[in-house]
Amino acid sequence: MDIRALTFDVFGTTVDWRSGVAREAQRQLAPKGYDLDWNAIADRWRAGYLPAMAPVREGKRPWVTFEVLHREILDGMAGAFGLEGLTDAERDALNLGCWRRLDPWPDTRAGMARLAKKGPLISLSNGSIAQIIALARHGDLRWDAILGTQFSNSYKPDPKLYLDAVRALGLEPGQVMMVAAHTDDLKAAAACGLRTAYVHRSDEYGQGNERRRPEAGAFDFHADSFEDLAAALGV
Amino acid sequence: MDIRALTFDVFGTTVDWRSGVAREAQRQLAPKGYDLDWNAIADRWRAGYLPAMAPVREGKRPWVTFEVLHREILDGMAGAFGLEGLTDAERDALNLGCWRRLDPWPDTRAGMARLAKKGPLISLSNGSIAQIIALARHGDLRWDAILGTQFSNSYKPDPKLYLDAVRALGLEPGQVMMVAAHTDDLKAAAACGLRTAYVHRSDEYGQGNERRRPEAGAFDFHADSFEDLAAALGV
Repeated sequence: MDIRALTFDVFGTTVDWRSGVAREAQRQLAPKGYDLDWNAIADRWRAGYLPAMAPVREGKRPWVTFEVLHREILDGMAGAFGLEGLTDAERDALNLGCWRRLDPWPDTRAGMARLAKKGPLISLSNGSIAQIIALARHGDLRWDAILGTQFSNSYKPDPKLYLDAVRALGLEPGQVMMVAAHTDDLKAAAACGLRTAYVHRSDEYGQGNERRRPEAGAFDFHADSFEDLAAALGV
Repeated sequence: MDIRALTFDVFGTTVDWRSGVAREAQRQLAPKGYDLDWNAIADRWRAGYLPAMAPVREGKRPWVTFEVLHREILDGMAGAFGLEGLTDAERDALNLGCWRRLDPWPDTRAGMARLAKKGPLISLSNGSIAQIIALARHGDLRWDAILGTQFSNSYKPDPKLYLDAVRALGLEPGQVMMVAAHTDDLKAAAACGLRTAYVHRSDEYGQGNERRRPEAGAFDFHADSFEDLAAALGV
């Protein structure tokens, strides 16, 4: 295997969206008198993501950023959480704040420092460029480049994102490895000829909601953390 | 002035292309028996850059990478330097090697570390993504994102590059500052509403070929180095 660059999913794989969204929602809303199930807000917001992307993926709607979709999801769920009274400005602040201040998983930074010895580390996310920059600065993460949705004007798992990244890196698909905690993302990458590394993020949906592991051998590597993956790659 | 991100020219402003191209050409060609004026190779190669871009800028040729243009320039100048005997593979190695192993100017790294306190640092170059990644890894430079030619499928000074970057950052033009050693680049950025910082690189074309400084007040800032600019910005 001749891996020369690694592409990464971000939300769930590199950063912990659930605890971060819950914490920031509480930070912004509790002082206004709201007392809510903050984890439930994070879960509901995230659950709206796939349906919100569907019309873009199906070509029924022009590409818009993750933030535009997430703002619409927030509007749609406001009633369920008694947030109808939030102004537009408050909703914007909640939307941007919640999805730009997510902590990396505990092994992320050290793992990336090791994996960088293998080649460039590329963010290949459905998040917007401004958002990935903000997350990297928040968590002190070092990407060599940000590719993905805003580079390709489409959303994963559209093959275009993986193939555009390979081309931009001047490599062959088999020289690039997609790293993700989500099997759909990895299957789409593999279908484009990329190598794949599954990283198990047991707490992505909170403790007690552990995700099922894919069967052994489904991907080129199966790891429990970025450091674990680095060790498997010998760096 | 409310500057929230800085965009940078790379070749000449952030890295010293002339000494790097000369050194790498010598490293690759001297062992094959060539004894050439290495600086003259660098100068001639660079001189071919504007004419090579012209058909792309004028819409007469689809966008291609900097490397494609530079390979063509090399082919065109091979006769003048007695390099006709180089194979295709040797020309590819020379082309990629010469333009991906350029040292940062002595103040670049320390200056960028200070300037990063002001906001994200964005590469906004006519160089390809693979090339900017390679230069950053070679010189240990940390970009928050690589935008520019391959993001916009065009070449500076096309306004599209500056405006695409502003939009990708989710900012207003007046919140972004273009940093460059070249007045054409800065004038194009200013015409798009960006702030501008001129950095004087006296040795870009070698010692003894000092470039003329623009008149005082032509741009928002005039600095002699990235550290000088950081000081002017109070970081």
